[in-house]
Amino acid sequence: MNVPADRNAGDITDVAGYMHGLGRAAREASRALARADTNAKNRALAVMAAAIRRDAAALLQANAEDVAAARAAGLDDAMIDRLAMTAKSVESMAAGLEQIAALPDPVGEMGGFAYRPSGIQVGRMRVPLGVIGIIYEARPNVTADAAGLCLKSGNACILRGGSEAIRANRAIAACVREGLREAGLPESAVQVVATTDRAAVGELITMKQYVDVIVPRGGKSLVERIDREARIPVIKHLDGICHVFIDEGADMDKAVRIADNAKTQRLGTCNTMETLLVHTAVAKFVLPLLAKVYADKGIELRGCERTRALLPGIKAATEEDWRTEYLAAILSIRVVEGLDAAIDHINTYGSQHTDSIVTEDYTRARRFLREVDSSSVMINASTRFADGFEYGLGAEIGISTDKLHARGPVGLEGLTTLKWIVLGDGQVRG
Amino acid sequence: MNVPADRNAGDITDVAGYMHGLGRAAREASRALARADTNAKNRALAVMAAAIRRDAAALLQANAEDVAAARAAGLDDAMIDRLAMTAKSVESMAAGLEQIAALPDPVGEMGGFAYRPSGIQVGRMRVPLGVIGIIYEARPNVTADAAGLCLKSGNACILRGGSEAIRANRAIAACVREGLREAGLPESAVQVVATTDRAAVGELITMKQYVDVIVPRGGKSLVERIDREARIPVIKHLDGICHVFIDEGADMDKAVRIADNAKTQRLGTCNTMETLLVHTAVAKFVLPLLAKVYADKGIELRGCERTRALLPGIKAATEEDWRTEYLAAILSIRVVEGLDAAIDHINTYGSQHTDSIVTEDYTRARRFLREVDSSSVMINASTRFADGFEYGLGAEIGISTDKLHARGPVGLEGLTTLKWIVLGDGQVRG
Repeated sequence: MNVPADRNAGDITDVAGYMHGLGRAAREASRALARADTNAKNRALAVMAAAIRRDAAALLQANAEDVAAARAAGLDDAMIDRLAMTAKSVESMAAGLEQIAALPDPVGEMGGFAYRPSGIQVGRMRVPLGVIGIIYEARPNVTADAAGLCLKSGNACILRGGSEAIRANRAIAACVREGLREAGLPESAVQVVATTDRAAVGELITMKQYVDVIVPRGGKSLVERIDREARIPVIKHLDGICHVFIDEGADMDKAVRIADNAKTQRLGTCNTMETLLVHTAVAKFVLPLLAKVYADKGIELRGCERTRALLPGIKAATEEDWRTEYLAAILSIRVVEGLDAAIDHINTYGSQHTDSIVTEDYTRARRFLREVDSSSVMINASTRFADGFEYGLGAEIGISTDKLHARGPVGLEGLTTLKWIVLGDGQVRG
Repeated sequence: MNVPADRNAGDITDVAGYMHGLGRAAREASRALARADTNAKNRALAVMAAAIRRDAAALLQANAEDVAAARAAGLDDAMIDRLAMTAKSVESMAAGLEQIAALPDPVGEMGGFAYRPSGIQVGRMRVPLGVIGIIYEARPNVTADAAGLCLKSGNACILRGGSEAIRANRAIAACVREGLREAGLPESAVQVVATTDRAAVGELITMKQYVDVIVPRGGKSLVERIDREARIPVIKHLDGICHVFIDEGADMDKAVRIADNAKTQRLGTCNTMETLLVHTAVAKFVLPLLAKVYADKGIELRGCERTRALLPGIKAATEEDWRTEYLAAILSIRVVEGLDAAIDHINTYGSQHTDSIVTEDYTRARRFLREVDSSSVMINASTRFADGFEYGLGAEIGISTDKLHARGPVGLEGLTTLKWIVLGDGQVRG
């Protein structure tokens, strides 16, 4: 059963039946995709990119209608900002698909083979997860990105975008289907949920027989709700409470540059620094320098007692501040006794996302790397680098704050798993 | 807070408070363990093994009391069989800890470092998961095995064994604590839940702030209940419906040897074959040979129509048979048209555990490896090899039938995760 993804929402009254139909079709398509060759997948990606470029005007028109409807419905500016597409964002969607085509195919990689005393030879092969359900909010570019990443990694996917982006998502989905068709791959490898009924999400995250993993992308409340209600494993991103620790052994130029960039390069991203930790031995040198940098950029500072003694007039940071992801022009600052106190603070208040130490001291740098329990741990680099493109993954489906399976930026590899391969010559167990 | 693991069950009225106390202590211990050096961990394992050998008589006495109580309570023979220890099983517990000590330490392995265009150098480091909750039934040896594997992989653990094994588990736990103490590691790195109150399990599987992963070991109903109710990721094992497919290109000697061993070497294990698939072109040669082997070993056969035409008198297999993990002296047999039908059967009815093809044909063997979506896929080897020891993991905490994180036998590596490491020299993002 293959329900056309551009079917009108109004046609669907039996949401559970509709979603199970998508699930069955996705499961079937996943088997074809798992054995699809690299050329077919790359050809599909190239055709999708070309179709998106060719249909740019129509995509922008569909998006303009979404934006108009969103405004009429009174959605806030931040939401409309995420929803709105431009000629540039359409081009970057197409370019993104071509970049995914250029990445090595992870499926079928084999390695680690070793002979065992029994005579069997044991290794592992990288294989797709199967069917991936992706639930996201406004941004229509996720439709193309997610379809591309799932396809290249050999997975079928079911995409459930925000209802506010439904027109653009359908137009993008038509380009995606064209690519699949041209490459001889099943169109149901990528299905966009056509109904805006919220019950569709409830079905998607509980139909274990058809879906292997759920990736929610959006605000924390969406992600928490999905994680709470899902009966399928979830690869998710919650908070990004990132720290920079300026050690007593820091190079002060690097410290100022990194603490500036980590906070101010972009305020609203998950890898933006939210709390700055400063070694007590260098606080009196570096904090006044940084206070000037932050003042020039309009960053509000909130400090511990020792910070406030050095920067009179700033607001006191509360226990709550240490636990807050501001995503705004606010920074909390704490002066600490040393490395142990910094690591304790990070492991207590952080969100295990990304934390960086600025130091020239080898032993303390090495301890920081081992003992900070976060998905990305850095030495002398801005937390803003925690990103699939910057890490060389080529693209990312998201940044995981979970520990199991995929940690940190999740690219093609995170959408695959390893199975064991045993090569024998008639061996039996004694 | 460190609640002694040998505290009597009767002392504990506030189960939630007690479990949260264990959780806090485990979380704290996990930080010390994550930075413990390899020597300290190996020393602890060696002392545990020595203590178990020294206390063998006391362990057997405690176990004898458990067995007597279980008999008095009317537990079935299979349960008592799993519960009962012998001098040999005590020795193998000690030897198992020594084997774990001899394995390489997975914690801190680093690799994959590459320079990025920005100048940062990005790689990954293997790190412990944190705190592992293990819930198991009768077998007391799991207490030592699980403690050893968690310790070597740098994880704290909370062990909740079956109430019927409580005396032996406490005696083993005392040996484990002695090892931790002697090596200067926190005793709360391994805590055995002292109460047999079932509410303790409910707390363990929902206290997300203290526990990172749950590993249930036991019957399917236990595992399903834990998986349904847990609010923490679960590494689990459900069914083992394993297949052997005898291809038309099979060497008949290998086919008979493997189909015999996979079914009859042990009947009750998860990697035992439950359904035999035979290519129609060779069925008339191989099935009569196998029927004799199975008849001699008392295996009941249930077949499809074509099987029954070749082996008159055997029972008809129903749709239900294809979905059944017998764990008993029963085998279902199906004659199939060829490789595609075999793969379809396995992907439809199997449990994604372990499946083997017997063939000398290169192309079909290669397709089987890629297209069978199971945690272990084999060529010309008995499914009985799907096991951590046989694969060279040294020991296993279980065999995962999940796809995310750990698939197949789970050893030390499956109890760890990878974090990203970024080495910079003052880089900021432009």
